[in-house]
Amino acid sequence: MSQPAPAETTLPKPEGLEGVVVAHTALSHVYHEGFLVYRGYDIHELAGNASFEEVAYLLWQGHLPSQSELDEMLATLGANRDLPEAVIVALRALPPETAPMDALRTGVSALGAADREHFDDTPDLDEAMALAARFPSILAAFFRLRQGQEPITPRPELNTAQAFLYQLFGTEPEERHWQPLQTYLILLADHGLNASTFAARVIASTGSDLCSAVTGAVGALKGPLHGGAPSKVLDMLNDIGSVDNVDAWLTGAMDRGEVLMGFGHRVYKAEDPRAEILRDLAERASDPEFFALSKRTEERALAILEERKPGRRLYTNVEFYSAAVLAAVGLPGDMFTPTFAVSRAVGWSAHVLEQTANNRIIRPQSDFVGETGKTYVPVGER
Amino acid sequence: MSQPAPAETTLPKPEGLEGVVVAHTALSHVYHEGFLVYRGYDIHELAGNASFEEVAYLLWQGHLPSQSELDEMLATLGANRDLPEAVIVALRALPPETAPMDALRTGVSALGAADREHFDDTPDLDEAMALAARFPSILAAFFRLRQGQEPITPRPELNTAQAFLYQLFGTEPEERHWQPLQTYLILLADHGLNASTFAARVIASTGSDLCSAVTGAVGALKGPLHGGAPSKVLDMLNDIGSVDNVDAWLTGAMDRGEVLMGFGHRVYKAEDPRAEILRDLAERASDPEFFALSKRTEERALAILEERKPGRRLYTNVEFYSAAVLAAVGLPGDMFTPTFAVSRAVGWSAHVLEQTANNRIIRPQSDFVGETGKTYVPVGER
Repeated sequence: MSQPAPAETTLPKPEGLEGVVVAHTALSHVYHEGFLVYRGYDIHELAGNASFEEVAYLLWQGHLPSQSELDEMLATLGANRDLPEAVIVALRALPPETAPMDALRTGVSALGAADREHFDDTPDLDEAMALAARFPSILAAFFRLRQGQEPITPRPELNTAQAFLYQLFGTEPEERHWQPLQTYLILLADHGLNASTFAARVIASTGSDLCSAVTGAVGALKGPLHGGAPSKVLDMLNDIGSVDNVDAWLTGAMDRGEVLMGFGHRVYKAEDPRAEILRDLAERASDPEFFALSKRTEERALAILEERKPGRRLYTNVEFYSAAVLAAVGLPGDMFTPTFAVSRAVGWSAHVLEQTANNRIIRPQSDFVGETGKTYVPVGER
Repeated sequence: MSQPAPAETTLPKPEGLEGVVVAHTALSHVYHEGFLVYRGYDIHELAGNASFEEVAYLLWQGHLPSQSELDEMLATLGANRDLPEAVIVALRALPPETAPMDALRTGVSALGAADREHFDDTPDLDEAMALAARFPSILAAFFRLRQGQEPITPRPELNTAQAFLYQLFGTEPEERHWQPLQTYLILLADHGLNASTFAARVIASTGSDLCSAVTGAVGALKGPLHGGAPSKVLDMLNDIGSVDNVDAWLTGAMDRGEVLMGFGHRVYKAEDPRAEILRDLAERASDPEFFALSKRTEERALAILEERKPGRRLYTNVEFYSAAVLAAVGLPGDMFTPTFAVSRAVGWSAHVLEQTANNRIIRPQSDFVGETGKTYVPVGER
């Protein structure tokens, strides 16, 4: 018996599914023209006005909460920050040099395995809140354990940004730190069908559970082509060192064919609206000298990119000023992407709920470019 | 400032990306007509002829190994079955009632986090072998720990099927057990762009690491619409209990609107070629009475499905006789899907290598069906 020739397939879509519509969503939309909308609200309406918890409620529930709805949610989040012992044990066992994203992925997976009281096989709003509340706890616990410190007992009255900083550092979070962090969390909470969100939806589409979907999403976010680059912006800025060195550094990097970090995006053909808000935030939150360095690097990089790659329309993306804002908040570079994950956990879980509510398994086709019709020959006769 | 109306999008593709080509692959192809090909070889050429390790080599490297290539690979797999202490600690901390798929997902994630000697950020063949070799060890360790037994030290001279059984049960694996298990592992090793494999490719497309991609794939495979159902076939057969009860049970289940487990597939519009091979295997490997019950249930289910859903062309799928084969090998029902994962780890890692070799980030578009143009109102004024 031999198989037929491969059937004619439709032509492969653009590599990477660029521009290919694969799902409906009412959660968020990324406009080429440089707009980002969550559930009807332009991101400019929310950043600086709403709290992160209001935005989470909006994404999960479809409308901004009333005062009593918000109070109830804050109480639920506050009561859900403790980690089961199995998660702490797993994090404690990891070598201190473990990448925080690897620790987070392992902690989320262990949480889904060990905490069946909060997580079973049916994703729902309670699970989304229970998981989002524990994201900062997992990261903060690992952050302390790797330094030989014990995890901090969560304080239920703190909001998400405050709780994260308190559990990381064990000191009362200052407003000049938690406010910019809160705005950062709002800006990064959802962004259409980015790769990690799409991975979460593919996993959830099999009928799998929320923690499985979000564990996969954490693994996707850590990739340098997705969320793994913001600390590289910090490395670049530290390497440039001073305003005087910007031109020489950028020219040298481009001469060597290096990619400048923090510029360009698959969807936006204009400035990323989050970059604009983060730039303002960085100006207020960060050390003036560091902001001046960032600003000068941005301006010169855009000019040099336009000169060397005319027509490519490379604009500042969300990662560029994330570096300045997160550094100003007191986070080390290797916690930047994990902090992105604390925010995006809301979007991931909201997408899982949306996928689950109207599900069909995501099982695409491939274009087979391999051979056919071969006959097995035993190893001795090859 | 307000965002423009959503741009016109192309019409959403069929739900679940059915029939939509999203990638090239030379690894395997699933033919509607009921054929499955790995790297040019029809599955009938390989099952019963090749060893699982030859098939793994074929999928990873593109050709069947020479004797020296095979010997080298067997030595590498044999030397890579030990688990780092951090993985054992994480598995030991999980409650005994943890689903083995949740334990496996956590173990693979912890492995990627803790074992930077074998796993860094660049997926390659060495990593694929190091990971595939440790899959059975993770599962067997958890299987023993949940019963209060210590993990078994791996024996490097055993093949994969033997090693898995030895590490599970601590006794010399019998040929009547490891041979059918090996054929099962060959049959399940790859299957085009199924949901877990696609999830792995999406994750890898961000430049993320092999363990992140495969951790996500494990989470996808556990979904009941994908790999989570074979133990339900066993439950069904046990519930039917005897050949005399088949018709009454099936009719009753269908009257109650229940889905019969083990029938139908997204791609095949003919019998799943793996089902055919597994049926033969079950006939030889399993208890004659249990095989007779399986066979009678299959025949009557197909007849009743054709009668009640004419034209739907529902055929026996891979899960139906997986139940009989894996039960005959001595595995409990909750280890069926994890054993599927031991096999598919080869396909997942091969797809990650293929994706990485010619990568573009998989970042699709969504059709935005939400609102726009809303104005934020503070919570007290809502």
